[in-house]
Amino acid sequence: MKIAITKRVHFCAGHRLFNPDLTDEENLAIFGLCSNPNGHGHNFVLEVTVSGEPDPRTGMIINLSELKKIINDSVINKVDHKNLNVDVDFMQGVIPTTEAFASRIFEILDKEIGKGLLDKVTLWESENNRFDVSRD
Amino acid sequence: MKIAITKRVHFCAGHRLFNPDLTDEENLAIFGLCSNPNGHGHNFVLEVTVSGEPDPRTGMIINLSELKKIINDSVINKVDHKNLNVDVDFMQGVIPTTEAFASRIFEILDKEIGKGLLDKVTLWESENNRFDVSRD
Amino acid sequence: MKIAITKRVHFCAGHRLFNPDLTDEENLAIFGLCSNPNGHGHNFVLEVTVSGEPDPRTGMIINLSELKKIINDSVINKVDHKNLNVDVDFMQGVIPTTEAFASRIFEILDKEIGKGLLDKVTLWESENNRFDVSRD
Amino acid sequence: MKIAITKRVHFCAGHRLFNPDLTDEENLAIFGLCSNPNGHGHNFVLEVTVSGEPDPRTGMIINLSELKKIINDSVINKVDHKNLNVDVDFMQGVIPTTEAFASRIFEILDKEIGKGLLDKVTLWESENNRFDVSRD
Amino acid sequence: MKIAITKRVHFCAGHRLFNPDLTDEENLAIFGLCSNPNGHGHNFVLEVTVSGEPDPRTGMIINLSELKKIINDSVINKVDHKNLNVDVDFMQGVIPTTEAFASRIFEILDKEIGKGLLDKVTLWESENNRFDVSRD
Amino acid sequence: MKIAITKRVHFCAGHRLFNPDLTDEENLAIFGLCSNPNGHGHNFVLEVTVSGEPDPRTGMIINLSELKKIINDSVINKVDHKNLNVDVDFMQGVIPTTEAFASRIFEILDKEIGKGLLDKVTLWESENNRFDVSRD
Repeated sequence: MKIAITKRVHFCAGHRLFNPDLTDEENLAIFGLCSNPNGHGHNFVLEVTVSGEPDPRTGMIINLSELKKIINDSVINKVDHKNLNVDVDFMQGVIPTTEAFASRIFEILDKEIGKGLLDKVTLWESENNRFDVSRD
Repeated sequence: MKIAITKRVHFCAGHRLFNPDLTDEENLAIFGLCSNPNGHGHNFVLEVTVSGEPDPRTGMIINLSELKKIINDSVINKVDHKNLNVDVDFMQGVIPTTEAFASRIFEILDKEIGKGLLDKVTLWESENNRFDVSRD
Repeated sequence: MKIAITKRVHFCAGHRLFNPDLTDEENLAIFGLCSNPNGHGHNFVLEVTVSGEPDPRTGMIINLSELKKIINDSVINKVDHKNLNVDVDFMQGVIPTTEAFASRIFEILDKEIGKGLLDKVTLWESENNRFDVSRD
Repeated sequence: MKIAITKRVHFCAGHRLFNPDLTDEENLAIFGLCSNPNGHGHNFVLEVTVSGEPDPRTGMIINLSELKKIINDSVINKVDHKNLNVDVDFMQGVIPTTEAFASRIFEILDKEIGKGLLDKVTLWESENNRFDVSRD
Repeated sequence: MKIAITKRVHFCAGHRLFNPDLTDEENLAIFGLCSNPNGHGHNFVLEVTVSGEPDPRTGMIINLSELKKIINDSVINKVDHKNLNVDVDFMQGVIPTTEAFASRIFEILDKEIGKGLLDKVTLWESENNRFDVSRD
Repeated sequence: MKIAITKRVHFCAGHRLFNPDLTDEENLAIFGLCSNPNGHGHNFVLEVTVSGEPDPRTGMIINLSELKKIINDSVINKVDHKNLNVDVDFMQGVIPTTEAFASRIFEILDKEIGKGLLDKVTLWESENNRFDVSRD
């Protein structure tokens, strides 16, 4: 049996999708409404999945309070109520698609949680658009 | 019996909460993270409630397709993927709190639907924050 | 203070919207896709709200098990996995809009629960279309 | 127009439904599985609705951070991960039905928020059982 | 890292479960309420998951607008508000269980999206019944 | 293609997290609010996923009514409205973390369903905490 535990957290943020190497017309053709120059935003839902063996002393794979603290310190506090294009250090120089955003969150959490425990990061930008990043 | 029908629609938008008559410190004290100068955003859910007598010929109070068209033309197309502070004509000169946003949407829809049929507008800015505007 | 209790139940059913006194073209113009001759269907969610004074001996307005039994016996067992146009006695001779369906359910439950305890019936035909019938 | 704002919060708690003046058989007949002597529990969702006039300086009826602090201090911190029959002072001497629980929360919040601003308290004990307490 | 993107869409449809090679009694024994001769229906939720490498020029695996257009053209427009037994060409000669329906949708989308990008199709026939088809 | 079917069911239960080999202080440090001596509880959501080949005669992998009966008989009836520490035979001698609870449910259902059909058990203890047990 493989056992995994998932913590789900919420935050909101603004972004604008555009590639600075392209013209406004090209950006509009590719990104549509998402390229609105003044930006827009979303309520994001982030799910972080960790797998491993439960510790016999606690019956837990990882303490959910500890996992929540890692997620808050390394991700949520840097992105909640922020503008991804301007305010978030780890998103600079990147087109802030949710693919890119989820990938960077996976890399950050993988390093912070350590031991290869991180299994998957799921990021919902709306209830109809979901992005998953998992260890290959 | 009173019969009411509610259409629920989704959109996303960015905003920044601040009162230009106040200092940055005062704005931060009042609006907290929501006063972030570069803005943030939300997935909004809008519920529009209309009440009245069903038409005997159709069995309907209002045709949901017609109601949806009114909502899209007069509200959604003006706010979806937009920045409320900059891009939306009916939010100029207003602190774009969700109270103000929902009130303006009620006034617009009340005029567009007509005949006093509009009963209530509910606007969710997140799954934990809801705003209702109803006829007094 | 006014105290109310709401039971939420699920069922599914099929229906076709059309007025037999109209032509096919008129029905299509009014009911759109909903007038498809071979029918379609929905997962309905029904919420039944009862208000009153809690009984001091039980602390309850109405026993939820008793309320659920009334809902099942008088409504759910007659409509679940049924075709509203053909199989449901209390929908005969009526255009089966959700307005009409919710109104009939209110009348039936009001009689079965008695004592004027029934406050409201809410019927969702999809997560975006909701119908409320309440005592005027 | 009437404007209302609702904050939604989560907590979990245990309870056992029984009337100490009744026999075990009577309690079982009335409360069914809910009278299990060793208790059970729920994830509760609490919605607190406040209505009033937005303050022109802030555009807000009440600051949601302030409202959340009142809810946490006067309710959530006293009930979250607690046993309602044993651990919660304001539920002593009461059959802890959700009717009674919601009514006590309304009285507490009405006093703490003040000025008659509190409009409604909604308490979900499960996604299918909801309890509303509103000013009469 | 493996990156996947999922689009979630809604539609409603009617169906009747029965095997024409069996007697009515056998059909009732196997399919229960679902074999009601006059049909019933559901609100379906369809999730389509595509995985691959983000394009460096756009930061996207696939443009969600393009994916949505493929889903609408090849699936939704053929099944929404339709009767699966009668109206849908790709369901003829098949018992329209949700297993069969999801499998056919996977095959169609796999061909339309191409390049082996399709990872998984998930089809909910109710909030409690889910069907997944994935590449083996 | 791999086809899987998932049944989702609800129940509620109480529990207290503590290791009897540790002191109260150690238990509090590890389990926090969850070690409250008088217990607390949750609404759990259980998802059971079975995969296999649809039977050509029925078009189904497994009859959902049959699957639901197995889940109810072997799990739900033993845990619903119960205290996991005291009332549930298969949780005796175990720290009732949701990791342990989900693992035991997997083992029980794997035996009851048989033929290696069980693919995954998912157990939500709240809308933000999820536990998955799958065949390795």
